[in-house]
Amino acid sequence: MAEPVFNRLCLVGLGLIGSSIARVARERGDIARTLVACDTGVGVAARVKQLDLADVVEVEATRAVEGCDGVILCTPVGTFGRVMQHIAPHLAPGTVLSDVGSTKGSVLRDLLPLLPEGVHLVPGHPMAGTEHSGPDAGFASLFQGRYTILTPPEGADPAAVEKIAELWRRAGAMIETMDAATHDKVVAIVSHLPHLIAFTICSTADDLAQETREQVLKFAASGFRDFTRIAASDVDMWRDVFLNNREALLEMLARFSEDAHALGRAVRWGEAEFIEDRIRRGRKIRHGLIERKQA
Amino acid sequence: MAEPVFNRLCLVGLGLIGSSIARVARERGDIARTLVACDTGVGVAARVKQLDLADVVEVEATRAVEGCDGVILCTPVGTFGRVMQHIAPHLAPGTVLSDVGSTKGSVLRDLLPLLPEGVHLVPGHPMAGTEHSGPDAGFASLFQGRYTILTPPEGADPAAVEKIAELWRRAGAMIETMDAATHDKVVAIVSHLPHLIAFTICSTADDLAQETREQVLKFAASGFRDFTRIAASDVDMWRDVFLNNREALLEMLARFSEDAHALGRAVRWGEAEFIEDRIRRGRKIRHGLIERKQA
Repeated sequence: MAEPVFNRLCLVGLGLIGSSIARVARERGDIARTLVACDTGVGVAARVKQLDLADVVEVEATRAVEGCDGVILCTPVGTFGRVMQHIAPHLAPGTVLSDVGSTKGSVLRDLLPLLPEGVHLVPGHPMAGTEHSGPDAGFASLFQGRYTILTPPEGADPAAVEKIAELWRRAGAMIETMDAATHDKVVAIVSHLPHLIAFTICSTADDLAQETREQVLKFAASGFRDFTRIAASDVDMWRDVFLNNREALLEMLARFSEDAHALGRAVRWGEAEFIEDRIRRGRKIRHGLIERKQA
Repeated sequence: MAEPVFNRLCLVGLGLIGSSIARVARERGDIARTLVACDTGVGVAARVKQLDLADVVEVEATRAVEGCDGVILCTPVGTFGRVMQHIAPHLAPGTVLSDVGSTKGSVLRDLLPLLPEGVHLVPGHPMAGTEHSGPDAGFASLFQGRYTILTPPEGADPAAVEKIAELWRRAGAMIETMDAATHDKVVAIVSHLPHLIAFTICSTADDLAQETREQVLKFAASGFRDFTRIAASDVDMWRDVFLNNREALLEMLARFSEDAHALGRAVRWGEAEFIEDRIRRGRKIRHGLIERKQA
């Protein structure tokens, strides 16, 4: 077996992503020599112990990070500033600090100012997930064949970046590196806007007159079903994602709204060619995904 | 084996839906004693013959419907008026005329004025489909466990309605009856609006700067992937659906837009509670679907 990437790795937050990292780390043994899991959620630490997801289970983050050479924040991104204020004094020089948040500009904003001298920040975002949440929802193969995007700040320590990259490679992921701003724009359209739309259309349906709403539930064809699958996602996580990728998300929403209104206008005025063009572009994008094996 | 529902049944249009009806009819034998397939598309009739989907294959609708006691239009809804002008003089009194179009107000509008004396119109809409199209895309179990909505006009012949209902029951579907206006509102939100949104978001992505677009294709997370699956649908069919359910679709688009802007506004102003409420409503709708086994 290869040398473990970290001697003592602490996962803060054992939800879907955190518990999946724990599972793959336990299964492989070469991600961390000692795995520490920390979660302050009611009953989560007990459940993590029951599931035997880590060598050490803590409810106090300041204790949990003590003596670790790797720490990964796996809580909703809105908590990062608060968590960092607690743990920063307890991070040893040389520690690599990472996270799995879906927004990356906010991570630099919230963590960099609090970063102790000699601690290396390497933000990461595994592009994987399901609509389920909590420590029972995780599984070891969640990251297999999926991308993890790293957004190291300028001047980041190459050895620290390589450690986080190697952790993700061992978890089965493919690595991409880009700056935080590009990351936030890309995820705004591939993930955050679709979620905003999915939540919205469910609300729109929910507001319909009682009788129509009953029929909607009854006849949810594949279109609506796919939308609601996305809409079943975790409340705290998505609230934080929206609030922490505000600028990029609102820009994409504005672009999308313009385009939706243009298509609506074409429907109103019977502009068949415009409508066909939009449908064709949808098919083209779809085929692009299939060629890239992302479909 | 039960007595076939129809003695001689003609399917006009052998795309995904038409060829699926043909397959289940051939497989069971109790839907039509003789099955006639008619398609004017280049090469479609030849392919239908090759696939042995019918007893008789025609390219001329006027000949195809001759002597039939059942005719089902399975072409895009925008063609119905034109097709009806051709076939109306060739429909024998007592014939049951139906269709599988996704919009029902337009079917009454286009077919009722041309309906010959003694021919019974029973519009239908099987709530089933995939993103694929053409005679090769169909399969016999497509309608299994799915709803077919019938929208007979006022004063429709009960025996004719029962024949179409029985055809769909034998194809595996569950039957619901409602008026055309209610149907059009329900499908506008469960199916047509989701498709309009999916086509739109693909266009929005396609308009992004080259570099971002490349990244979008690369990192299409589950959210975007699910949207593009819908967006791969047939161009002619969806153009016609949009144009023929204009009023209901535009109403639902307007409601959705208001709701999307309200959520966007909450993101801009950091209104966490409003955002959480929207996410929770999405989850509630989702759970409603799961309880109804529509998820």
